[in-house]
Amino acid sequence: MAQQTVEAYLKEKIRDLPDWPVEGVLFRDITPVLEDPEAFKTAIDSLSELMKDLDFSKIVAVESRGFIFGGALAHKMGKGFVIVRKPGKLPCETIAHSYELEYGKDTLEMHNDSIKPGEKVVILDDLIATGGSAKATAMLVEKLGGKVEAIVFLIELEFLKGKEKLKEYDVFSVVKY
Amino acid sequence: MAQQTVEAYLKEKIRDLPDWPVEGVLFRDITPVLEDPEAFKTAIDSLSELMKDLDFSKIVAVESRGFIFGGALAHKMGKGFVIVRKPGKLPCETIAHSYELEYGKDTLEMHNDSIKPGEKVVILDDLIATGGSAKATAMLVEKLGGKVEAIVFLIELEFLKGKEKLKEYDVFSVVKY
Repeated sequence: MAQQTVEAYLKEKIRDLPDWPVEGVLFRDITPVLEDPEAFKTAIDSLSELMKDLDFSKIVAVESRGFIFGGALAHKMGKGFVIVRKPGKLPCETIAHSYELEYGKDTLEMHNDSIKPGEKVVILDDLIATGGSAKATAMLVEKLGGKVEAIVFLIELEFLKGKEKLKEYDVFSVVKY
Repeated sequence: MAQQTVEAYLKEKIRDLPDWPVEGVLFRDITPVLEDPEAFKTAIDSLSELMKDLDFSKIVAVESRGFIFGGALAHKMGKGFVIVRKPGKLPCETIAHSYELEYGKDTLEMHNDSIKPGEKVVILDDLIATGGSAKATAMLVEKLGGKVEAIVFLIELEFLKGKEKLKEYDVFSVVKY
């Protein structure tokens, strides 16, 4: 499928939910994409197409929805898979990075031996909104001496301008709203 | 690789952590399996080998680690992927099932349109301990009229006898302790 056709096809499968999780937000629900084998294959294959010329050895993804795409792409592309989790979930020694939310703060953790100095990675998530968790993940990779080759999303909410927070990185996405 | 060789190979990659998350528990950390492309491929391919003769159209997995294996296997095997989450995470109408923990209770939710009546599924998770979340997931599938063809784990902690809770199902695992 051509890129534009892929985007239109996936937009038809994504379920739009007004006022979730709070009033005024239009939530893009990807569960119908996951549940339809052809749509899921299209999503994974389009993401892998975006990443195919990049030079990297690991995919890094944030729980929970990022794990779905990270697992599938790491297996498809023969890469290692590094998980980034909420505080207290990883059993070994971790590094942490906190970032601001609209109200309050959030923290993400990564095992401190997950990335070797100089190792090149791609950060992957299902959706970029304000870019906070992707930026925090990039900080974790760089704290361990890794290099972020690109940050890739299935869905980008362009009007939230999350890319501005990720200016120093190559950012790609399949579906744009 | 022969089944025994696969098990020994994966056991070498799995990191054993005494006294985590609480004293007296030996935690089996799969993050080194994920981070090593060959080990991750071996894990996914062994799981798919266990499932290859089963008749099913969807894989069902519980957040968060189940998503890694569920995403990879749904893509590899051309199946739909249904996610089961903690309360309040799924945006559409859900059904819920609560189950007992050692202390207290936990609840899992699934969208109420994720499984059609008569649809056959495989439930997948990284590890079976006491079997509580797998059993709750099977209850959710059956509440919607689905049929559980099998429940599959990468790792089974046999001494915790979780399989006894899943007596009415076919249960398979790759690595046994």
